[in-house]
Amino acid sequence: MRAEVILSPGEFSLHDLTGKTGIVIDVFRFTTTILTALEAGIERFCPVAEIEDAWALKNSHPDFLLAGERQALNISGFDFGNSPLDHYGKEYAGGDLVCSTTNGTRAIHGARGAQEIVLASMRSAAAVAAYVKEQGRDLVFLPAGLAGKFSLEDTWCAGFILSLLELEELGDGAKVALLTYEQISREDLVHSAHGKRLQGLGLLEDLDFCLELNASSGVVIWDQNSGWGALKR
Amino acid sequence: MRAEVILSPGEFSLHDLTGKTGIVIDVFRFTTTILTALEAGIERFCPVAEIEDAWALKNSHPDFLLAGERQALNISGFDFGNSPLDHYGKEYAGGDLVCSTTNGTRAIHGARGAQEIVLASMRSAAAVAAYVKEQGRDLVFLPAGLAGKFSLEDTWCAGFILSLLELEELGDGAKVALLTYEQISREDLVHSAHGKRLQGLGLLEDLDFCLELNASSGVVIWDQNSGWGALKR
Repeated sequence: MRAEVILSPGEFSLHDLTGKTGIVIDVFRFTTTILTALEAGIERFCPVAEIEDAWALKNSHPDFLLAGERQALNISGFDFGNSPLDHYGKEYAGGDLVCSTTNGTRAIHGARGAQEIVLASMRSAAAVAAYVKEQGRDLVFLPAGLAGKFSLEDTWCAGFILSLLELEELGDGAKVALLTYEQISREDLVHSAHGKRLQGLGLLEDLDFCLELNASSGVVIWDQNSGWGALKR
Repeated sequence: MRAEVILSPGEFSLHDLTGKTGIVIDVFRFTTTILTALEAGIERFCPVAEIEDAWALKNSHPDFLLAGERQALNISGFDFGNSPLDHYGKEYAGGDLVCSTTNGTRAIHGARGAQEIVLASMRSAAAVAAYVKEQGRDLVFLPAGLAGKFSLEDTWCAGFILSLLELEELGDGAKVALLTYEQISREDLVHSAHGKRLQGLGLLEDLDFCLELNASSGVVIWDQNSGWGALKR
């Protein structure tokens, strides 16, 4: 098994994901929030690029729930924002969630072409590591970044998962992600560019929740053909 | 002084360089080669995107010299390739060099908008560090990368220069570049993606030359208004 980490969203289109497992990471907060919503009972989710796309789906399927953010703020008329705390501790009896977030949605679609697309977060890192190891494919990590730029916490999370896998063959980006995990403390991630931004919006509880390691055994898979994703286990 | 390192060429357009010093790094081999050519007596250089642009300049100024590469190979009819060994130990009596390389040219133009644009390499790292410290502006490093992707050796070089500057305020990308320098040995850079590619082309002597630290006291500046660059000192 070989692994590469694409350090910037600006490169997503330049890497060949054919036959590989794509691992999308948006710690603050999309992949954390989706995991939490699915574990609370939401049955499936559909990431869409534009707010208008979400409303179009809602118009044809009035039972769909809408979630998302723009610049970390809730979208008017949507059922949920992009906070995992919207869902944590809830018990839903199913439901279809249409989501529109900036970074996470871009990263998920950037993983198109991979054999399988897995969503990962700090909370599901060990579960994702075990799952992709079983699958045995080469890995490409797609840290979602912040507004198209490198993200320290997403790269750190990729490095953390790599540390659990102990692979022998790492691409240059994967080597750097592993170093990032080994040399930067998890506590320091609240001071990343994205962390500071969310702190400025008063979202410190979200940060703490998103930075908790291995709190979940859930593995989320997104099916690029149907456009919907769900818990695999 | 604050510093950021843009880890991928895919992000060049997303960063604001206004009022800052932009530091372009293409260790393998553009910025190393330009430094070496200028120190051998070439008076100035002009980076252009396309081979046709170089020929157009040559047609109107037959005394111009042409240099460059495509996929690390020499361009038919050009005076020089992109090897620093083309120039090392030579003594030119001036001359105007028009250059077209893939990664370096993109990075130089990616630095447009900066207050001043400096070219750096392993050989000139300490000289560049001393120069930009004197200037006192905030810094943005632009590692040129490889075909639009992250480059380990260019990022390492940025980290090396940062280690000499000992700045207090580093952006997330700069923190990671500094770690890369601290944790990855210089000898290992011949095994980077770019290093392996040049090794495969039999360019090991070029690699050794490009990886030599602080062998030069030259500082190269590119003037984005005229399109020409030269040795500043």
